[in-house]
Amino acid sequence: MTYCVALNLQDGMIFASDTRTNAGVDHISTFKKMFRFERADERVIFILTSGNLATSQAVIEDLQQNIHNHVDKHVLNAPTLFDVAQLIGLAVSSIANNMEQLGHTQNNAMFGSHFLVGGQIRGQAPKLYYVYPEGNFITATEDTPFFQIGESKYGKPILDRAVHYQTPLQDAVRAVLVSFDSTIRSNLSVGFPIDMVVYPKDSLSMPEGARIERDEPYMKNIREQWGDGLINLLKQFDMPPEQYLN
Amino acid sequence: MTYCVALNLQDGMIFASDTRTNAGVDHISTFKKMFRFERADERVIFILTSGNLATSQAVIEDLQQNIHNHVDKHVLNAPTLFDVAQLIGLAVSSIANNMEQLGHTQNNAMFGSHFLVGGQIRGQAPKLYYVYPEGNFITATEDTPFFQIGESKYGKPILDRAVHYQTPLQDAVRAVLVSFDSTIRSNLSVGFPIDMVVYPKDSLSMPEGARIERDEPYMKNIREQWGDGLINLLKQFDMPPEQYLN
Repeated sequence: MTYCVALNLQDGMIFASDTRTNAGVDHISTFKKMFRFERADERVIFILTSGNLATSQAVIEDLQQNIHNHVDKHVLNAPTLFDVAQLIGLAVSSIANNMEQLGHTQNNAMFGSHFLVGGQIRGQAPKLYYVYPEGNFITATEDTPFFQIGESKYGKPILDRAVHYQTPLQDAVRAVLVSFDSTIRSNLSVGFPIDMVVYPKDSLSMPEGARIERDEPYMKNIREQWGDGLINLLKQFDMPPEQYLN
Repeated sequence: MTYCVALNLQDGMIFASDTRTNAGVDHISTFKKMFRFERADERVIFILTSGNLATSQAVIEDLQQNIHNHVDKHVLNAPTLFDVAQLIGLAVSSIANNMEQLGHTQNNAMFGSHFLVGGQIRGQAPKLYYVYPEGNFITATEDTPFFQIGESKYGKPILDRAVHYQTPLQDAVRAVLVSFDSTIRSNLSVGFPIDMVVYPKDSLSMPEGARIERDEPYMKNIREQWGDGLINLLKQFDMPPEQYLN
């Protein structure tokens, strides 16, 4: 399983992914699920992916080959991020078609992959898209400024509450890390380390990003402060009314 | 969709369910998902159910008919709660078989229901079972003192953190209500009111229980205190280290 989150906020973007993949519980590995494309000072693009690892890797490979082969339109010369999302959609659906030609009924649940792609191109606003296994896609808005893919439910309540379009990046980073911690705690198949990049709007330069390990002091702090804080918060509530207990 | 939780703790048991069912978003109704069986001063039994509403209702009807018809073994005379879980397992799997005879391939995802059944019989310890659509079942233990059925993921992190076998009932009630509030906030198809009963160990009497509406003052308080508390908690964290942000 996988857990990835991407946010498009007023001050910039955040992309984060776990790094665990598995095919059955006895076959667990660490794979990068975050990919970056850059044209210095002109565009910065991040892709997160979940679902079938073979499909995800084939799509990324396809995007890279197309750059290398100087095809007409690729990730680094597409005029907008909308076009980039379209390139990913085409790639993922053509891989599904290949599987069909190999005799597998097109089965998006088995062979499909999901992609979050976002970034910024000079002169344009930052954009974030969610590309479905079927190849179509939606965009994040001020009302819905984040997308999740993979094992998204455990970590959604904290994002629903704490993240809005106006949330400062540093606050959103903390909410994202708590969201990952909750997910990893509740689902064994999502695991550390977390890959995270924070892209300040209009910087148009590739951030270095961080690979955050389970036992990094800051992560440990967050985990403990959050766990203790939640329990204290519960204890501060008024006692339930008598009629709830009878 | 549905969300139900049952806990078997040191001091007693808690059963809670939402009340919304839907068949597509335009067909949403309120149905009871909690059922009770009692023999005064001898046994108290609670059943929560999720999944296919027709199957759930048929199982409950079957259990009730068997009591009414004085069959050899029914919920009110079964010697243990293990036997009660077995009766439910038999009922749910025979309904699946009926569907097959009607020409539907046995499809637990479509026609299956899940059951949490628990309570106490005089002279025995309180017991909690999770009966699967296939008819088999597992029991809660001190290590795993609660089960959830239905839309369980949004509300699991808070229970994982705040509920242990030794947790006092009043603390657990507050965690359960937060768990429901998180679920309802993140999934439209789970809805108020919440049915909840708290059964103190060895009381062997049927608690009245409460039907908790969205706008009840206590529930509103919890929702607001929790939402504000979480955001304050996040703000109290140290700022993320510089290398996370570059």
